Amino acid sequence: MITTDDKVTRLLRYRSAVRRMKAMGLSRVYSDNIADATGVSALQVRKDFCEEGVRGVRRGGYLVDSVLARLEEVLGKDTTCVFVLVGVGSLGTALLKYDAFAHYGIKIVAAFDVDPAKLDARAPIPVLPVKDLTNYCRTHHIRYAIITVPEGAAIEVYEALVAGGVKGILNFAPVRLRSAGGVIVNNVNLVYEIEQLVYFVKHARSKR
Amino acid sequence: MITTDDKVTRLLRYRSAVRRMKAMGLSRVYSDNIADATGVSALQVRKDFCEEGVRGVRRGGYLVDSVLARLEEVLGKDTTCVFVLVGVGSLGTALLKYDAFAHYGIKIVAAFDVDPAKLDARAPIPVLPVKDLTNYCRTHHIRYAIITVPEGAAIEVYEALVAGGVKGILNFAPVRLRSAGGVIVNNVNLVYEIEQLVYFVKHARSKR
Repeated sequence: MITTDDKVTRLLRYRSAVRRMKAMGLSRVYSDNIADATGVSALQVRKDFCEEGVRGVRRGGYLVDSVLARLEEVLGKDTTCVFVLVGVGSLGTALLKYDAFAHYGIKIVAAFDVDPAKLDARAPIPVLPVKDLTNYCRTHHIRYAIITVPEGAAIEVYEALVAGGVKGILNFAPVRLRSAGGVIVNNVNLVYEIEQLVYFVKHARSKR
Repeated sequence: MITTDDKVTRLLRYRSAVRRMKAMGLSRVYSDNIADATGVSALQVRKDFCEEGVRGVRRGGYLVDSVLARLEEVLGKDTTCVFVLVGVGSLGTALLKYDAFAHYGIKIVAAFDVDPAKLDARAPIPVLPVKDLTNYCRTHHIRYAIITVPEGAAIEVYEALVAGGVKGILNFAPVRLRSAGGVIVNNVNLVYEIEQLVYFVKHARSKR
């Protein structure tokens, strides 16, 4: 995780939630709705909206379109983000097919793997050899990457991406990569997430 | 995320890191090593170890076996955790195959889906109909579940799990489920993770 509780994170979550509400056909939302969808308290939602100039309407609530317009102003215009993905194993393959990404403007344009059997330059998302990674990123001005390789390969892939000019990396390999030199890494460790869950369940039970 | 910066989370990370180091054949580790592997400062590692009674050795560093023994005492004995997984789409399938889970004592014993074409009661991890979910969890005393269904199905699945006695849920559906009534939910939203990454990269660049 890059950060967790700061205001930008909350604003990004509000934007995601309000977009989903708009897609459901809502034209007006209340701070309670947004609180439920994001896990932030309704009071905090109102406070953030007030501070960021998101205005409510007379009988309470907020107009969906005006919330979104204001959040776009604050967060910067939201354009499609182009990613490469490295490591076409089971998790990598799943993320290549993950519908929610396309829905939120996240587009994976190429994937890379070391296994010759997985290569397919003509697939809708081409699968290319890892040795071409740096050159591809440089040529196509790629800024973002997702790493889904095994632990042992993660650092080498990280260095190839950085050499290619990549600035933001979402890392699923179970090894922590560090943000450095203008490159930002968001580490998502699924084993940690499960270990935390198990600990908190056991702990809650033992307190009864 | 359940929590992020508290000491239990750090202790869980230290344990994961030191286990990996042990698997690599190390017998002694230094606070710097653990800091690098977990993203916690070396000073914080030493402080936590001191507070929790993890003792160093005379010439500096810590013996791997004594760190692990003490962390097991503090965190509770670590046994295999049995999970069910609901939603055998691309992400669910990936998690069923995810080697790292088995490696860390996380065992998925059954999967569930609504699609008759996906059902396979004889597979190594059987895929069963969702209508049997509550009953299965109750009969097999299942405490933990992973949700990888689409947004629209998440709440129904959550209720079926809770009715079956499940106490801990790792939720990947892009809708926030709440911890309540003794049930703990850890929400992992991959779209949020990417949106945060993109925002922080853009923000870092604009500050130059």
